[in-house]
Amino acid sequence: MNEPTRIGLVGYGYWGPNLARNFHALPDAHLVAVADVDAKRLDEPARLYHARTYADYRDILADPTLDAVAVSTPARTHFEIARAALERGKHVLVEKPLAMSSDEARRLIALAEQKQRVLMVGHTFEHNPAVWKIRELIEQRELGDLYYIYANRVNLGRVQRDINALWSIAPHDISILIYVLGALPLDVSARGATYLSENVEDVVFVTLTFPNHVLAHIHASWLDPSKVRQMTVVGSEKMIVYDDVDAEARLRIYDKGVYKHGSAYGESQLKIHSGDIFIPKIDMTEPLRNECAHFVECVREGKRPRTDGENGLRVVRVLEAAQESLAKNGATITI
Amino acid sequence: MNEPTRIGLVGYGYWGPNLARNFHALPDAHLVAVADVDAKRLDEPARLYHARTYADYRDILADPTLDAVAVSTPARTHFEIARAALERGKHVLVEKPLAMSSDEARRLIALAEQKQRVLMVGHTFEHNPAVWKIRELIEQRELGDLYYIYANRVNLGRVQRDINALWSIAPHDISILIYVLGALPLDVSARGATYLSENVEDVVFVTLTFPNHVLAHIHASWLDPSKVRQMTVVGSEKMIVYDDVDAEARLRIYDKGVYKHGSAYGESQLKIHSGDIFIPKIDMTEPLRNECAHFVECVREGKRPRTDGENGLRVVRVLEAAQESLAKNGATITI
Amino acid sequence: MNEPTRIGLVGYGYWGPNLARNFHALPDAHLVAVADVDAKRLDEPARLYHARTYADYRDILADPTLDAVAVSTPARTHFEIARAALERGKHVLVEKPLAMSSDEARRLIALAEQKQRVLMVGHTFEHNPAVWKIRELIEQRELGDLYYIYANRVNLGRVQRDINALWSIAPHDISILIYVLGALPLDVSARGATYLSENVEDVVFVTLTFPNHVLAHIHASWLDPSKVRQMTVVGSEKMIVYDDVDAEARLRIYDKGVYKHGSAYGESQLKIHSGDIFIPKIDMTEPLRNECAHFVECVREGKRPRTDGENGLRVVRVLEAAQESLAKNGATITI
Amino acid sequence: MNEPTRIGLVGYGYWGPNLARNFHALPDAHLVAVADVDAKRLDEPARLYHARTYADYRDILADPTLDAVAVSTPARTHFEIARAALERGKHVLVEKPLAMSSDEARRLIALAEQKQRVLMVGHTFEHNPAVWKIRELIEQRELGDLYYIYANRVNLGRVQRDINALWSIAPHDISILIYVLGALPLDVSARGATYLSENVEDVVFVTLTFPNHVLAHIHASWLDPSKVRQMTVVGSEKMIVYDDVDAEARLRIYDKGVYKHGSAYGESQLKIHSGDIFIPKIDMTEPLRNECAHFVECVREGKRPRTDGENGLRVVRVLEAAQESLAKNGATITI
Repeated sequence: MNEPTRIGLVGYGYWGPNLARNFHALPDAHLVAVADVDAKRLDEPARLYHARTYADYRDILADPTLDAVAVSTPARTHFEIARAALERGKHVLVEKPLAMSSDEARRLIALAEQKQRVLMVGHTFEHNPAVWKIRELIEQRELGDLYYIYANRVNLGRVQRDINALWSIAPHDISILIYVLGALPLDVSARGATYLSENVEDVVFVTLTFPNHVLAHIHASWLDPSKVRQMTVVGSEKMIVYDDVDAEARLRIYDKGVYKHGSAYGESQLKIHSGDIFIPKIDMTEPLRNECAHFVECVREGKRPRTDGENGLRVVRVLEAAQESLAKNGATITI
Repeated sequence: MNEPTRIGLVGYGYWGPNLARNFHALPDAHLVAVADVDAKRLDEPARLYHARTYADYRDILADPTLDAVAVSTPARTHFEIARAALERGKHVLVEKPLAMSSDEARRLIALAEQKQRVLMVGHTFEHNPAVWKIRELIEQRELGDLYYIYANRVNLGRVQRDINALWSIAPHDISILIYVLGALPLDVSARGATYLSENVEDVVFVTLTFPNHVLAHIHASWLDPSKVRQMTVVGSEKMIVYDDVDAEARLRIYDKGVYKHGSAYGESQLKIHSGDIFIPKIDMTEPLRNECAHFVECVREGKRPRTDGENGLRVVRVLEAAQESLAKNGATITI
Repeated sequence: MNEPTRIGLVGYGYWGPNLARNFHALPDAHLVAVADVDAKRLDEPARLYHARTYADYRDILADPTLDAVAVSTPARTHFEIARAALERGKHVLVEKPLAMSSDEARRLIALAEQKQRVLMVGHTFEHNPAVWKIRELIEQRELGDLYYIYANRVNLGRVQRDINALWSIAPHDISILIYVLGALPLDVSARGATYLSENVEDVVFVTLTFPNHVLAHIHASWLDPSKVRQMTVVGSEKMIVYDDVDAEARLRIYDKGVYKHGSAYGESQLKIHSGDIFIPKIDMTEPLRNECAHFVECVREGKRPRTDGENGLRVVRVLEAAQESLAKNGATITI
Repeated sequence: MNEPTRIGLVGYGYWGPNLARNFHALPDAHLVAVADVDAKRLDEPARLYHARTYADYRDILADPTLDAVAVSTPARTHFEIARAALERGKHVLVEKPLAMSSDEARRLIALAEQKQRVLMVGHTFEHNPAVWKIRELIEQRELGDLYYIYANRVNLGRVQRDINALWSIAPHDISILIYVLGALPLDVSARGATYLSENVEDVVFVTLTFPNHVLAHIHASWLDPSKVRQMTVVGSEKMIVYDDVDAEARLRIYDKGVYKHGSAYGESQLKIHSGDIFIPKIDMTEPLRNECAHFVECVREGKRPRTDGENGLRVVRVLEAAQESLAKNGATITI
């Protein structure tokens, strides 16, 4: 396969332009066609990338020259479009969340398996070198005992009316948490509030229990004055602040911590230390570039993506349970 | 009463030195005596303030020349010391929380009433001009409809082993929330985790529902790499970030928001705006100075303090309910 | 002229890719060809923009279908390429500095005049809404009496070996200063230091005197740990900090100042005030987009650009004088 | 000498209260008396420290029970008061600058020598652990070849009318530079501007050449919207940003740099690297506390202070030369 991989993009709204720009920039890929229900949006990809444009995504699926399809449409349509694309024998990259239920997600996995096609979900942060570094530090036990992790992902903008902040924003943090901890949460609870559209939470607070008493907490909102994308990882010996908005200091590793120190008399004492801060050099390649390149590589070489269908399913399972907790006013739901 | 008010301080551990420094600096007050169970701590107040020092606080209560007592001992002793001081006819300033149960708080209120003495609780932030400004902006409906408020109060340090982060740290935010919203929460839920001492949560996440669908959330922890004292207030027309650590910009008022706009066809539309940011000049007097001065003024003029016993009771009631929720794994508790 | 303006780009090194991206994105422009002496650089514009590519810029000038040429080559070649392009009847956009001497700049101006072609210099910051706002505030005397302005433009990277930091970096600040003050400086002095290449200053400090006792100072360096692009404007009643790297607060307008207040006894008193801070909403369109659009508009409608040849000449005159001062160890040179 | 050292303080304006607070807090010192020409200022030290107070500093010098005198009066009076105190046999701590001329400074040195008394100048930053660390890193050649250093020390406030920003603010940076570089500058030039009081520069820019081609630059001003106290040290292999206002990151050590790399053909190549950032833990003791303790220690043990008279003289010599350059419109003055 020496020709560039031929890609069709379905959905050119908020995120689609980023996918288009990145696929266009990859030497091994060729962005051939773009579909969107809103005709006004199609001028740009036509002009910038000389892409063929369609109002109906089925025209993209019908094109036998296309190898792969990227889906960046509203979340509720992910399943149907990904399903149809797989049916047509296309490799598929679906934006997060993979689907709106674990049942849907499982059906996509099975279909991809049957059709022998790549199914990948766009959990961008698992293609982010800063997140890789956090996982590495945790795995190597650099932080000592892991205590807890909390994430704030808030901004003003991209208010959605069909899915809530849980399904729209929190998938990023859930995917990061599962990735860096290497485990599914045991349970989850969530509370939120609805201000703008009926039954659509604009803000959610999610609490998750992971194995080994690791607690995690996510604050997701599209009603906030500032753009914050921060995650703090607290261990007994070191702590990390990951600030995705800070170009100079993506990760700060604090040589700080408190741990219990057993004494001769059966009583523990606490040792607190507060030392240096270390900001490692992080490769600044755009994570979405990594993601798109990884997808193309998987398509071309028949590899299984890092963020495959199972990966997408795990996130959806947590979202489902959190949604159930929201409906039950914060009751803790076992996963 | 032209002589300075004569004050005894009980407890010279973490917070007591700040009370001592501020009372010493007030022209109308005279810090006469300091008690602490740890003799090593007493050198400093003796040298800096020429205070008489005692190992036993009862020696302070027994001194008939003292008008008032400030209590900054471990929280579990607040009730007993404040009670004994009131019994002895002293005016009393108690550090937060006022007591460890609403029953105790009510007994202190009744006793102060009976003895005709000032009972004040050290909710410092209600003596803070930045917090006054937030209340004013909310009252004047500058923010439009109020949506939600969240607070982060975290740091590394002052790890406690007798009370958890809820009772140690969250009283600040609960007191601020009740103050700026002018209402008690309707219900509360809390989840936390215990790492260092048995049955003592080192980190808690508290969710509160206030009247008019205002949601509030508090993250309190003494296991964090950075000192954060931030509260964000989100309204439909404006938003406020209150950063108590930012000397130049205590309050940022964002002309930003989203609100529903009814249309002719019964469907609402969302209007998003994102405009200027305004940082008002805030008086930078140390809030604890204001608090100490207010206590002395109340003692001298027979006034009721802004943060009186009832005020302290309200915070304790919320803490009690949150503690119950913690014990019930995050169940929502009505207040 | 309904067809898009056909543009050739000469130089695809550091800055050229930005020009290419922006011209490509403009509906009224068509990036037809790109030339660079380094063949490896030409893959990208061929792939991203389907541009024809050449090793020799003269092939671009020879193409009669091109309306305009953008020049982003090393500064020492600006004059010769711009001259040749004008001779061939092309409209020309030259990156800053316009030329390496005022004599060269004047010759380009005369040639453009004679050929009736647009000659524009790429002083990007004069196409930047934040800079427009500063000029507006100064013109409307919002700052009171203007005292002084200082700029820091430092970074690690883009170390040059043929021109020094004065000619490479300071043109931005000189262009901004002349623009916002509406005047040429009266004199200039400069000191610098050479570390990496003989006779090429890696860091310079430039002091300029403008009319009305306004002092200005520029620190330009490519040897710095952090990217700083900051300008502070100090007036008697208000002050502005312009931070081009701060996305949330491009401009901070401080209601702060000191002014003399005459007293009855002939002695002046100083009034110091320190009030609110105001961060106006600034349009965040990429200034280079504005610049490219303005160039295309001038070409299409026969307008004179805001940053025309005379504008470029003014900056070159200041650079020449500053260079003379550098050679004379900081002596003040009248302009 | 087991009794606390008895100290008199002359001058209780801007800085004196800080000296008083720190001497009062030292176990080995006793702040006995305070003098100030402004009677209103004397209430505070009387109340806070039970100090005897005088309008005339000669009453302090006349007190035979005092061992030492600290002088924090307007700079133009330093010489006369320090001289009189030494004559009376007192040990003397003088705020910076030591005197207003090198001649005066030399006379104080000689007098202290003759009277066998400690003469110390209050160059606080040489008692600052962050500055010690910078010196250590430079001495150990951690930065590679040292290129240049620049300092910004600006703020709104403490506008002076008798001495200019050079003499008022820049002594801090000059003292730091001489200390960390271990050398006097070879020459200096300075430009400034006068807005508020005749012949008193409110802002100055100072450029200094140190041995080994190290350039230094100081920007000092009391007309600035923000409090900035920053120094950047640029080496070929590492760079340091010292931010005295950043509590979490006093020093940032950047593993960044550019250096020349000789090639086989006689041509050098540049190697640029940009790696991790390291923020060392710095002892946060108040530097003025260190300074006061050091003074008391020198008095009690007959030691020569780190910031002795010769140290103060070196700074005054640089200030004199810079003042001469200011008068000559920025001409470079050899030291």
